[in-house]
Amino acid sequence: MSVITVERKILEKNDEVASQNRRTFSERGIFTVNMVSSPGAGKTSILEHTIERLRGKVNLAVIEGDVQTDLDAQRVAKYGVPAVQIVTRGGCHLEAGLVREALDNIDLSTVRLLIIENVGNLVCPANYDLGEAAKVVVASTTEGDDKPLKYPAMFRNASVLIINKIDLLPYINADLAALRKNALSINPSLRVFQTSCTTGDGIDEWCSWLVQSASGAHS
Amino acid sequence: MSVITVERKILEKNDEVASQNRRTFSERGIFTVNMVSSPGAGKTSILEHTIERLRGKVNLAVIEGDVQTDLDAQRVAKYGVPAVQIVTRGGCHLEAGLVREALDNIDLSTVRLLIIENVGNLVCPANYDLGEAAKVVVASTTEGDDKPLKYPAMFRNASVLIINKIDLLPYINADLAALRKNALSINPSLRVFQTSCTTGDGIDEWCSWLVQSASGAHS
Repeated sequence: MSVITVERKILEKNDEVASQNRRTFSERGIFTVNMVSSPGAGKTSILEHTIERLRGKVNLAVIEGDVQTDLDAQRVAKYGVPAVQIVTRGGCHLEAGLVREALDNIDLSTVRLLIIENVGNLVCPANYDLGEAAKVVVASTTEGDDKPLKYPAMFRNASVLIINKIDLLPYINADLAALRKNALSINPSLRVFQTSCTTGDGIDEWCSWLVQSASGAHS
Repeated sequence: MSVITVERKILEKNDEVASQNRRTFSERGIFTVNMVSSPGAGKTSILEHTIERLRGKVNLAVIEGDVQTDLDAQRVAKYGVPAVQIVTRGGCHLEAGLVREALDNIDLSTVRLLIIENVGNLVCPANYDLGEAAKVVVASTTEGDDKPLKYPAMFRNASVLIINKIDLLPYINADLAALRKNALSINPSLRVFQTSCTTGDGIDEWCSWLVQSASGAHS
């Protein structure tokens, strides 16, 4: 019995279901993003701002992943968009199969944009494809500028980096330029947005990218 | 072949080695803490302040755990204390066996306090006993006040909670009282310290607790 073999089998099975999910999204013209970050980097806050901006412009749905509680789905549901909560009960990442089950609870016929908020964890979700078009990693300025170097897999596997909480830069000793440089040294093709959910900075740019991507997926 | 069985076997094996570590620490009168948190909550900064305060008062050694890089061991080594870096190369937590190997690289004869800094991850390290006397969970105010509810295992298994970055409270919408209340609702016996590595607030209280605990382990 080899643990590595078991892990490979789990990942192979996951990749299979992720491919099914990807086909579903492609057939239906749904653009799907998988938002990943450390706990408390601001995924849910960015999501709330995003929904506020995109309501009425793009039909979107949300899948929330959490170790425990449905607090995040409650926050999102207030905005009147379809939201399904996955509670992993201790599990440290979402898997493609959990997303597939969640899809059964969403009427996909009108959805153009699906946002999956993963469990707050900068390590494990990096290895689990959910069938998304893009992994979006959120890094908070308050986490310091060295995180891309210390958790490289997540930054390597992401297509988009949102540097959040830029309003706090005057009060902390993290260096925004160093954070960008470190992230791009790991993955030069990262598209980078800089946001603040307190001031609203950068949210429009991020939302424009989402709308453009979603219309591309549909055409 | 059952994945759950494999995981149980891994945990059983880990617990066995953790017990060996615990015996080693007890026989030598070493007080050992296992510091856990989200990435960027401030474990290394707290550690630097702690070493500055305790140098010459308590003989301490440090084991650093990171997914990648030895940046943290470099930061700690500057203070002239014995520091060993464990690089997990993608692994999401430290295990007792890795700590045991690291101990071979430290002269334990004079050490009274061993601080292990775990991988930044609020989920997986909760399940892995390293043989420590106390798990210390660091929660940054910037992560928001709901994290104990969303990641309960870590707060349940910890003996100490350090609420860090309290200097940023005026600039964020996290509620310190709610954070304390949420943590204590998960684990009423948590000893709570409130710290800022920018102002130095609370570091003395935390260090006093460490010194007192270390002298208890030795007597």
